[in-house]
Amino acid sequence: MSTAEILAVGTELLLGQVLDTNSQFLSDELARIGIDCYFHTTVGDNKARIKSSLVTALSRSEIVLMSGGLGPTADDLTIECVAEVFGAELIMDETILEKIETFFKERGIAMPESNKKQALRPRGADLLPNRTGTAPGIIWTIEPDLLEREDIKSVPKLASKPRYIITFPGVPSELKCMWAETVCGFLQETVLGSTIFSVELKHYGIGESALGEKYADLLEGRNPTVAPYAGNGECRLRVTAKSIDLDSARKLVEPVVEQIRKRSGDFLYGENDDTLQSVVGELLMKQKLFIAVAESCTGGLVSKRLTDVAGCSEYIGLNVVTYSNDAKERILEVPREIIERHGAVSAETAEAMAKGVRRLSKADIGLSITGIAGPGGGTPEKPVGLVYVGLAYDSEFELKELRYPSRLSRADIRHRTANEALNMVRLHLLSRCRTTV
Amino acid sequence: MSTAEILAVGTELLLGQVLDTNSQFLSDELARIGIDCYFHTTVGDNKARIKSSLVTALSRSEIVLMSGGLGPTADDLTIECVAEVFGAELIMDETILEKIETFFKERGIAMPESNKKQALRPRGADLLPNRTGTAPGIIWTIEPDLLEREDIKSVPKLASKPRYIITFPGVPSELKCMWAETVCGFLQETVLGSTIFSVELKHYGIGESALGEKYADLLEGRNPTVAPYAGNGECRLRVTAKSIDLDSARKLVEPVVEQIRKRSGDFLYGENDDTLQSVVGELLMKQKLFIAVAESCTGGLVSKRLTDVAGCSEYIGLNVVTYSNDAKERILEVPREIIERHGAVSAETAEAMAKGVRRLSKADIGLSITGIAGPGGGTPEKPVGLVYVGLAYDSEFELKELRYPSRLSRADIRHRTANEALNMVRLHLLSRCRTTV
Repeated sequence: MSTAEILAVGTELLLGQVLDTNSQFLSDELARIGIDCYFHTTVGDNKARIKSSLVTALSRSEIVLMSGGLGPTADDLTIECVAEVFGAELIMDETILEKIETFFKERGIAMPESNKKQALRPRGADLLPNRTGTAPGIIWTIEPDLLEREDIKSVPKLASKPRYIITFPGVPSELKCMWAETVCGFLQETVLGSTIFSVELKHYGIGESALGEKYADLLEGRNPTVAPYAGNGECRLRVTAKSIDLDSARKLVEPVVEQIRKRSGDFLYGENDDTLQSVVGELLMKQKLFIAVAESCTGGLVSKRLTDVAGCSEYIGLNVVTYSNDAKERILEVPREIIERHGAVSAETAEAMAKGVRRLSKADIGLSITGIAGPGGGTPEKPVGLVYVGLAYDSEFELKELRYPSRLSRADIRHRTANEALNMVRLHLLSRCRTTV
Repeated sequence: MSTAEILAVGTELLLGQVLDTNSQFLSDELARIGIDCYFHTTVGDNKARIKSSLVTALSRSEIVLMSGGLGPTADDLTIECVAEVFGAELIMDETILEKIETFFKERGIAMPESNKKQALRPRGADLLPNRTGTAPGIIWTIEPDLLEREDIKSVPKLASKPRYIITFPGVPSELKCMWAETVCGFLQETVLGSTIFSVELKHYGIGESALGEKYADLLEGRNPTVAPYAGNGECRLRVTAKSIDLDSARKLVEPVVEQIRKRSGDFLYGENDDTLQSVVGELLMKQKLFIAVAESCTGGLVSKRLTDVAGCSEYIGLNVVTYSNDAKERILEVPREIIERHGAVSAETAEAMAKGVRRLSKADIGLSITGIAGPGGGTPEKPVGLVYVGLAYDSEFELKELRYPSRLSRADIRHRTANEALNMVRLHLLSRCRTTV
């Protein structure tokens, strides 16, 4: 089993000015490809502390992934520190230097002298290309004989195993791209000698323990493994297989994924990067349907999430946020008597809103949300956390009453309501598709 | 100068299942009260690694803040590990035990035996109360004589200075509450012997370097200090003073804050927890005005942000998301000729949308947004990143044309556009308020 650890460099992280999302991303990816990670360390832009942290990391783990400190300024010290730990000379990579010069030339800016330093690497280290930024990283395979040098005796000898130092820039988008394009494959081929393929199966409407019980048999499997993860109101099953190449790993995963697809039924809403809104969008597009949303307590959140998806103009024409009773009456034609008799937060209002927005927009499906997101506005009969979600289509209407504990924050109540509303649309579209077939 | 470090405990962090926001929060707070933080370490639920990480942390820093591992299950090991490092006995705190028992009784659930362990603490440590959850933390002042014990010789003797171990649960809301209610004051009074008061002055529309130049004189001050922070499209100046008590620290801060308020003018939009949307909300409320929003490319984001603020029904009646041309025409009465001649993304359409939503909603102010958020939909004349924001009030209309680089993501373009739109409303409300006075 290979072990890795992550060393994040940057004083801005220690000052709390920047949230370190890179370590989470790398950890998630390491777990996915089957490399254990026992430590994260964050250290500032300080030579002595970077070097001592690197030596400690190398003494514990086979692979050290460093992020940050590759910029052109004086406090970007990562490459220097890596070279110094091993007493390695820094050499200038002419190809990289040219690339950086071109980058500035194309923008019509004179290259600051300091940017030259981004083309330096320790002799013996390979360059890790950065397609989306100026600073490349390095991949350095430290052979056991180098580990035996007198001046680095603090790094214990690891029988005959080499160590790997890989450096990334701190910019998350560049780090992710470099991971996906180069490092992930390098670690699997060179270090692990095996390849991982995994699929995430995203579930909604079933909890982690229920899912765990349902798949108790699969959870015991060794290759592929099946593991549940919960978070953000949904639950994922990750199916992972290890093999000598991607194709054979994929072949191990597929039958298990197929089995879960069948057994999970409609609890399974998507895979990998799918979101509730992207899946709803695809279903709408496939069925050539339009949706319109009338929101009250979610205030535009459902609309915002539906339009997160590029190309959503194919299935969204109009959404409205009718916060006031007056807007509900005038725009959506919710009869005043309904609001007066049942209140703005009621099944009846939800129905009139869904039908109203459908009529107004001429959409196929009208979705409505009315509720009390708090913190104020609750009463004993209608407490904070009470929400109605309505769905109008053809001449039909479906209603869902939600009751969230009032201790939840306004943001949580709104987020969970949006999930429920999107899932309700998804289930409707699925059943609609079955009826038509 | 006191130094601290942060030790986050939890295998879920090393697997990348959970993003560690606690270390950022604590770092930001430590910087604010003037305690240096040189390291963050994350370690899994493993006794040997927790203990060795704690010993390392104590050998480098005066204060060690630990988060996570205080739950009732077998893999919650923090308190045990802390006790074992010092060979201290674990004792049961009867008051806490009773509190936990009551917690379960009130919910009509039998208390699992394992929850008892949450009432344990090392002899000599003080309890750190947790008002919002079951697991209390500890504050343990390790006196120098304890550091001289034979079995903990790996912790170097620190002249005559004690060390402090403080443990928090991993739940961010509980950690924040315990920091604010107890730990922050403890560290200032007991460890620093001085108190910090700071104010954050939030700016929009001026960059970090421009702000730095403008306040070059203040940035050199020692007490209070003034430091700029940039991020998320805005820029903050933090004014911090240190003194023996809160009142005298506040008195040092106030004149500088007053000076910045005057010199920054309208670039300064708020302080501390203010957001652009909360400030806009306050101004609307104060001026008893209603706003209505018509969004196209932001798809409900501005509406969502305006309604993030509790109590927003005082100034929002109706917002619409008119994604399609048809909705722009039918609902907002944007003349078809305008869209045909100038396009949906044009100054003319923005004007008609802002006036249309104002008329439709009978609001005082109509805000409109139309643009190309990408990734598709751009043309050479109207590239991705082109956005128009319009503001209609009385018989007036104001327009802002934004041109974001097309390399920005859809999410970034939408987020920045929403900032600009909210700021435009803010500036209008400020000028309106001046005219009336």
